[in-house]
Amino acid sequence: MTFLRNAWYPAGWSDEIAEKPLGRSLLNEPVLLFRAEDGEPVAMSDRCPHRFAPLHLGRVCGSAIECGYHGLVFDRNGHCIANPHGDRSVPKVQLKTYPVVDRGGVLWIWMGDPSRASVDDIIDTEFMVSPDFKPVAGYLLVDANYRLIIDNLMDLTHASYIHRGGLSSEEYGGDNLHHRFHQNGISVHSDYDFRNVPPSPQLKPFFPRDRTDVRAYMHLTAPSSLYLDFRMSEVNGDPEQGVRLPSLHLLCPATDNSTHYFYAIARNVALDDPDADEAIRQTTRQAFMEEDEPMIRACSSMMGGADLLEMKPVILKTDVAAVRARMLLDKLIRAENNMIEAA
Amino acid sequence: MTFLRNAWYPAGWSDEIAEKPLGRSLLNEPVLLFRAEDGEPVAMSDRCPHRFAPLHLGRVCGSAIECGYHGLVFDRNGHCIANPHGDRSVPKVQLKTYPVVDRGGVLWIWMGDPSRASVDDIIDTEFMVSPDFKPVAGYLLVDANYRLIIDNLMDLTHASYIHRGGLSSEEYGGDNLHHRFHQNGISVHSDYDFRNVPPSPQLKPFFPRDRTDVRAYMHLTAPSSLYLDFRMSEVNGDPEQGVRLPSLHLLCPATDNSTHYFYAIARNVALDDPDADEAIRQTTRQAFMEEDEPMIRACSSMMGGADLLEMKPVILKTDVAAVRARMLLDKLIRAENNMIEAA
Amino acid sequence: MTFLRNAWYPAGWSDEIAEKPLGRSLLNEPVLLFRAEDGEPVAMSDRCPHRFAPLHLGRVCGSAIECGYHGLVFDRNGHCIANPHGDRSVPKVQLKTYPVVDRGGVLWIWMGDPSRASVDDIIDTEFMVSPDFKPVAGYLLVDANYRLIIDNLMDLTHASYIHRGGLSSEEYGGDNLHHRFHQNGISVHSDYDFRNVPPSPQLKPFFPRDRTDVRAYMHLTAPSSLYLDFRMSEVNGDPEQGVRLPSLHLLCPATDNSTHYFYAIARNVALDDPDADEAIRQTTRQAFMEEDEPMIRACSSMMGGADLLEMKPVILKTDVAAVRARMLLDKLIRAENNMIEAA
Ligand code: FES
Ligand code: FES
Ligand code: FES
Repeated sequence: MTFLRNAWYPAGWSDEIAEKPLGRSLLNEPVLLFRAEDGEPVAMSDRCPHRFAPLHLGRVCGSAIECGYHGLVFDRNGHCIANPHGDRSVPKVQLKTYPVVDRGGVLWIWMGDPSRASVDDIIDTEFMVSPDFKPVAGYLLVDANYRLIIDNLMDLTHASYIHRGGLSSEEYGGDNLHHRFHQNGISVHSDYDFRNVPPSPQLKPFFPRDRTDVRAYMHLTAPSSLYLDFRMSEVNGDPEQGVRLPSLHLLCPATDNSTHYFYAIARNVALDDPDADEAIRQTTRQAFMEEDEPMIRACSSMMGGADLLEMKPVILKTDVAAVRARMLLDKLIRAENNMIEAA
Repeated sequence: MTFLRNAWYPAGWSDEIAEKPLGRSLLNEPVLLFRAEDGEPVAMSDRCPHRFAPLHLGRVCGSAIECGYHGLVFDRNGHCIANPHGDRSVPKVQLKTYPVVDRGGVLWIWMGDPSRASVDDIIDTEFMVSPDFKPVAGYLLVDANYRLIIDNLMDLTHASYIHRGGLSSEEYGGDNLHHRFHQNGISVHSDYDFRNVPPSPQLKPFFPRDRTDVRAYMHLTAPSSLYLDFRMSEVNGDPEQGVRLPSLHLLCPATDNSTHYFYAIARNVALDDPDADEAIRQTTRQAFMEEDEPMIRACSSMMGGADLLEMKPVILKTDVAAVRARMLLDKLIRAENNMIEAA
Repeated sequence: MTFLRNAWYPAGWSDEIAEKPLGRSLLNEPVLLFRAEDGEPVAMSDRCPHRFAPLHLGRVCGSAIECGYHGLVFDRNGHCIANPHGDRSVPKVQLKTYPVVDRGGVLWIWMGDPSRASVDDIIDTEFMVSPDFKPVAGYLLVDANYRLIIDNLMDLTHASYIHRGGLSSEEYGGDNLHHRFHQNGISVHSDYDFRNVPPSPQLKPFFPRDRTDVRAYMHLTAPSSLYLDFRMSEVNGDPEQGVRLPSLHLLCPATDNSTHYFYAIARNVALDDPDADEAIRQTTRQAFMEEDEPMIRACSSMMGGADLLEMKPVILKTDVAAVRARMLLDKLIRAENNMIEAA
C-alpha cells in the first residue's frame, strides 16, 4: 500500500497540543507534535535515537523536547542539544522533522519532500475560527484504510440508510435526491440537492420548519481532506439566507488499515448556545462513531485488507464521485512514484 | 486445512432467526441467515457485492434483505431486485446461496455442490421438537479446530476428570467403565456403560436413586454432528424405562481454528418444570463453557495450529473411537477432493 | 532469536509453588512446576503427550502430576506411571524434565544440557532468606525482549528521569553521578555513586537524614540475573554502617518478545514493620509496573522486534555497561551454538 507523500495531511486539531506533547502514527511513521515557546507547532520523529523511546512520553522544555527515558534533549530542528549524563557530550544526530502549519484550527503536516511544501495548497477552513460560526470538533481512529472512509463520504446515498432518523432521513434518497459530480485539478465535488423535504430529526432544531431545501455539497481535496458545505434554506428560497452547517472530514492514514478521522461541524446559528454544542456533539458521535465507523470497519474486515477495485465491486451510477476520487488518487500516487524513481 | 463440503452442517438453532438477520462465518465463508415471509430459512453470502458490507447489518424486507449501507435489495435467490438511488438501475449480480433446511429445531446448511444435497442425509433430531421431551439448548464459539471438539466428545473418559463432581463422577471411570466401538458408513459409535454407579451429582435430581445403570452412547455422523443417547435406569433394569437425557453436540467450523458448537440436552422427565430447565442450563454452561472449552482451547494453543496426528500423540486404547472418526473424516475429505479434481 | 541455554534462569519465587502446580513459558517452552511430597521442586514439560493438555491444569498427587483432561499420571522423572482407563496399560513415554533448584528464595531452572548444570553457578541470594533482612518480592510479565530490560537496569541514568520524585530524584544525575564499570567472567558490574545528595522521596523514611551518600552497584550475571547492592550512609561515613536495600531483578525470557521479571527489594531496617513492607510494595509497583514497564514496552514497540544494535542506536558514554552486557551475551550464545554444532 502506498500513500501520496507530497501533500498536506491533518495531524490534529490546533488545540490538541499545548503543554503536553502528542505522539501519532502518520503514514506509518511515528510523529511527535508539540508547541514551541513562540506558539508555533513542531513536528518531528517521535523515536529517540538512543534507545528508541517515544519522545512524546518526555516533556517539552521551552522549544525543545526532553526524552523521558534518559533525558537527551532535542531542539525543534531535531538536533540533540543536551545530554545530562557522563561527560555530557552531545551525540551528532538529527531527527527527521516535518513541515507543520497551524491554520484554520488544524495542524497540517507535510509528509513528503519539504522543498515542495507550499502553504498555499492548504485548504480553507477559516469558518473553524471565524466569529460567524461555532464549530464542534471530534476525533476518531477508524480501523480501516482511509480510502474506505473517502468512499463513505463521497457517496452520501448511505446517509438515508445509516443515518436515517438522525442526521439524515429516509426521505433524503430516491427521487428526492439530485446529484451532480464534477472534478477540477486535485478536487472532486459531489453535490447533493434535496428539495422540499423535512429537516432531518437531529437538525430540525436548527431550522424549525416543516419543509426545507437541503444542499449537501461535498468537496474532496486529494489526498483526503473533505469539506461538506451543508445548508438548509426555505423551499425555493435563497441558500445564502438559510442555516449553514459546514463540516470537515479530514483524514490522515495512521497505518495501512487504520485512519485518523478529524471531524467538525460548525453552524451559523445559536452561536453561544451550549445546549446546541452538546446536541451537535451527540449527533456527530452517534453518526460517525456508532453508525459510520462500525459499518466501515465491517466492510474493511470483509475485504481482508484487499483493494476495493481489485475485488471487482458492483459499480452504481451513484458511485461516480467515489470512483473518480479513487482514480485521481491512484494517478497522483503513480505520478509521485515515477517522479521519485526518475530522481 | 480443508473441510468436507458436501455435507449438512448446523448453521444455528431454528429459533435463532426471526425478524433479525444473522451473520455467521461457516467454513471460512461469511453466511447470512434469515427467515423469509413464508417462514422458510434463507442462507446466502453475507457480503454485499457493492461495497462489501455485511448484509446481516441490514434489514429483512418480506423475503428479501436490504443492505444497511446504501440500500440495495436482494431476494432469497441472491438476485439484486432494487436500487433505491439514481436511475434505480439494478445491477446484474447474484449472491451465492446455500441449501438450508429447518428441521428438528436445527437450521442445516449444505456448504458444497447444491445438486448433491439431499434432506434424507440429515440426522434425526426429532426429540428436540417432540412433546415427550423438553430440550434446553445453548451455543458456544470455541477457539479451536472442530476436530479437537470431536476428540473431546468421542472419548468420554475425559468426563470423570473434567466434569467430576458435576455432570460426571469419579466413579465413571476405571473398572466401572465399559466401552464398545463400532463404525458403519459415515457414522462412528462410541458406547459407554457404567453399571451400578451413583448418579452424577448434577443429574441425580432427575433420577433420585443411590445407584443406577448409566448408558452413554455417542453417535458421530460425519463430518461433525454428534448425538449422545444418555440413559439412567434401575440397576439391571430396562433402559427403556428409565430417565433419558439425549443430547446434541452439533459442530460447524467457523474458521480453521474456531468452531460453532451448538449443544442441547433434552429430558423425558420434569417436562414443565422451569427449575429443571434452569438446572440443565447451569449444568451445561458449567460443563461446556467452563470445563471443556478452556481445556480444548488450551490444547489447541499448545498445538499451535498443527494437526493432532502429525504431532504423534500417545494413543491409548480408549482413543479408538476418536481416532477412527479422524480417519473417516480424512478419507471423506480425500475422496471429495479427488472427485473435484477429476471433474 | 536465540537464547543461552546452558544457564540457570529464574523460574519463579520459591513460594509460588505449593499445592497448586504452575505453568510457565520459559525460553518458548511450556514448563510445569510443582512441589513433590518431599518438598523438592519439580520442573518438566507442561504438555501432556496424549492430547497436549497443559499439565498444570491437572493436580499434584504425591510427587506425581495427574493430567486434568483424561487422567494420565506422570512421576517427577517424567515417566507415565498410571492410565486410569481401559486396560490401564501405561504408554512408554518420558516427558522432558529440567534440573530445578530451590535456593535463596528462588526457583532456578537449567534450560540446557543437564550434564552441565552445577548448582555452584547459581548466584547468591541468601539475603532473601536471612534473618538480617526483610524482603518484599513481586512479579511482572513484560511485553519486551529480555535484553531491553537488561539495558534498562544496567544504565541507571534512567532513574533520575523515569523515577524522579519517587524511587530516585532529579539530583541523582548530572555531576552528582559517578559511574564505574568493570567486567569479570560472566559478570558485568555497573557501579553508581551519588555523594552528598538528599535521600530519594520514597526511600527517605528508611534513612531520615537531609543528605546521604548513595551507592547503587548493579551486578549482572549472564544471562539475565541482576543484583543491585544499594546503600544509603552518612555523608563521608562508612557504607557498612548505613541502610542497605539490596534488590534482585531476575529475568527469564518467556518468548522472544516477553519476559518474566521477578523483582524483590530487601532491607536491613524496620524488619518487622508491616507498614514498611507495604511502602516498599507500593514503591516497587510504581517504579517497575507504572514507570519502567510502559517505557520498555514502548521502546520495544518502536523497534518492531528488531535487534537494538542492528538499529544503530546512538551510543552514549553511559551506555558502556549495557553495551558490554550485550556483547558478553552475544559471545556466550555464539560459543554455545558453536559447541552444539561441533558436537
Ligand atoms: S531513549 Fe531517549 S535518552 Fe535514552
Ligand atoms: S454496500 Fe451494500 S448497498 Fe452499498
Ligand atoms: S491429554 Fe493428558 S491424559 Fe489426555
